[in-house]
Amino acid sequence: MTIKDVAAYCDVAVSTVSRVLNNHPDVSEDTCAKVLAAIAKLNYIPNNSARDLVTPQGDSIGVVVRGAENPFFTPVIRAIEARCELAGYTMVLHQIPAGADEVAAGAELVRSKRLRGLIFLGGRFDYSQHEANALGIPFVCCTNTNQFGDLEKTAYSSVSIDDFAEGFKATNLLVQRGHRRIAILLDSVTDHSVSELRYAGYCQALADAGIPLDTSLVFQTVAFSMPAAFERVSAYLAQSQDVTGIFAVADTMAIAAIKALHNAGLHVPQDVSVVAIDGIEMSLYTIPTLTTLSQPQETMGEEAVSILLDVLSGTSPNRHVRLETTLREGETLGVCKN
Amino acid sequence: MTIKDVAAYCDVAVSTVSRVLNNHPDVSEDTCAKVLAAIAKLNYIPNNSARDLVTPQGDSIGVVVRGAENPFFTPVIRAIEARCELAGYTMVLHQIPAGADEVAAGAELVRSKRLRGLIFLGGRFDYSQHEANALGIPFVCCTNTNQFGDLEKTAYSSVSIDDFAEGFKATNLLVQRGHRRIAILLDSVTDHSVSELRYAGYCQALADAGIPLDTSLVFQTVAFSMPAAFERVSAYLAQSQDVTGIFAVADTMAIAAIKALHNAGLHVPQDVSVVAIDGIEMSLYTIPTLTTLSQPQETMGEEAVSILLDVLSGTSPNRHVRLETTLREGETLGVCKN
Repeated sequence: MTIKDVAAYCDVAVSTVSRVLNNHPDVSEDTCAKVLAAIAKLNYIPNNSARDLVTPQGDSIGVVVRGAENPFFTPVIRAIEARCELAGYTMVLHQIPAGADEVAAGAELVRSKRLRGLIFLGGRFDYSQHEANALGIPFVCCTNTNQFGDLEKTAYSSVSIDDFAEGFKATNLLVQRGHRRIAILLDSVTDHSVSELRYAGYCQALADAGIPLDTSLVFQTVAFSMPAAFERVSAYLAQSQDVTGIFAVADTMAIAAIKALHNAGLHVPQDVSVVAIDGIEMSLYTIPTLTTLSQPQETMGEEAVSILLDVLSGTSPNRHVRLETTLREGETLGVCKN
Repeated sequence: MTIKDVAAYCDVAVSTVSRVLNNHPDVSEDTCAKVLAAIAKLNYIPNNSARDLVTPQGDSIGVVVRGAENPFFTPVIRAIEARCELAGYTMVLHQIPAGADEVAAGAELVRSKRLRGLIFLGGRFDYSQHEANALGIPFVCCTNTNQFGDLEKTAYSSVSIDDFAEGFKATNLLVQRGHRRIAILLDSVTDHSVSELRYAGYCQALADAGIPLDTSLVFQTVAFSMPAAFERVSAYLAQSQDVTGIFAVADTMAIAAIKALHNAGLHVPQDVSVVAIDGIEMSLYTIPTLTTLSQPQETMGEEAVSILLDVLSGTSPNRHVRLETTLREGETLGVCKN
């Protein structure tokens, strides 16, 4: 089946079919409908390869997801795919473990696929100019910026929340309810990623409230996973139960923490309050319902694609979008009774 | 940056670089390493478009996910992507809502992308030969077969569990513990998909135990979602609490059911037992831990790709792989006290 067969079937010129395929405006509605119907009926697959040779690059946008097992990313990916499709791009998804190097993975993806742009979903905040050069195409950091790197702001785009401010806000929810023995549950305080920044916000909120930092309440899990969070909280509770509030940097970690508290015979929020950042659907169904700072997941994905398309088309230079969370009140935040 | 620049940089022939790019065996290890290092250093992006013109089709495998918000699919997608990458294919992911028509979406994907094969993740069991013809490329149904359609077994491949048998098994877990007021929570008994088959297994298990079918205990949600499941169970409990066991066809639905039971003041499993099919990570952290028939998610994804690659290479014809669940014992299944 070739374009000539489609043209013959519709009794139009090959160039007309070609114009329909390329969305040219100068085809009548009737002809366009007739050609599209024939394409569907004849199961004609346009030879995109030939088109790709004419345009300098492919029509794909790469998405590197770091820690794809986190359900937080699912609605973001869905929004990215929908926006890419609308704009005529193909999303090429590449999933790497939570601790892996997304820039190396991105560079490899650029080399092996025909990508026009890249979106990083979950990542480090310490990209170097050298790394960005290796990518060689426009990219958007979705959920991260670059506080710890030497990359110029003009060399990349980003869509993120203010992790320091949101970590501060989450901790303050506990402080305001009288908690002073407040733990933070995170992967690492030196991950150069969301954990490190939210930890800084946590420290600031404690300092502002005159609460000295107790490093035994800094629950580092190393791995960003539910089993690791569960083990870390369980290990603390086996030694001491001197904690009345936990700020988990992710909903998944909070859910694991609530389970660990439950298994240790502690009640949430009567004995220990739990707050988190994310707002995944699942945490609406935990018992009790999780109190969390909800991120605008769909908007994050949509913004990331919008920015990338603008940069690719030359409509605008790289830009940085800051979004805010909204408090999703649940049942895990209570007044400290100690 | 062209292939000539890479060749000049390495002081080798252009044809040598080409052989490295195409994984030809007749290049020495040293030369291969030198060329790959140069490609990385110079950030050379091979012109795949040119290669695609030589081979008749692209190197992409489409994956149509129906109901991507279900975390069940996440590990399956990860396994599919990893296997595709290993084999040198690009996974093109397309996510559609739970109720949408995946075959139409697949046909559209085949038309718009250069696909060599398709994997359906979650889908109907009633494909017609006509629909399959419209796809025009080999495809694997992952999680579904074709009990209700007229598609020849030789015209497609599948990787699935025996939904009837697993529905029977799940219901029987409740029957064996003395339950007789057993509800089933599913999207629809006539969805021509997993729900309909697992419902048939449920009916069979009840019949074998001499328990008459009570249609008021058939909780159809219409939408395959957590909010719908929560609402449906809550609505029943508001009218009647005459139920001691619930078999949910998915872990997500079971989690929503447990929440509804909790909100109605009922305890799991003391008042109502809950079992499900899936085995997602999240249901290890529910309170209480969900008892569920765990599907081999990674294996499903890997098998789907293996079969598709065999069919594409002509190594073997279409085939059908049946996998089994394993019981993941939790805390939601108890003996009936009524």
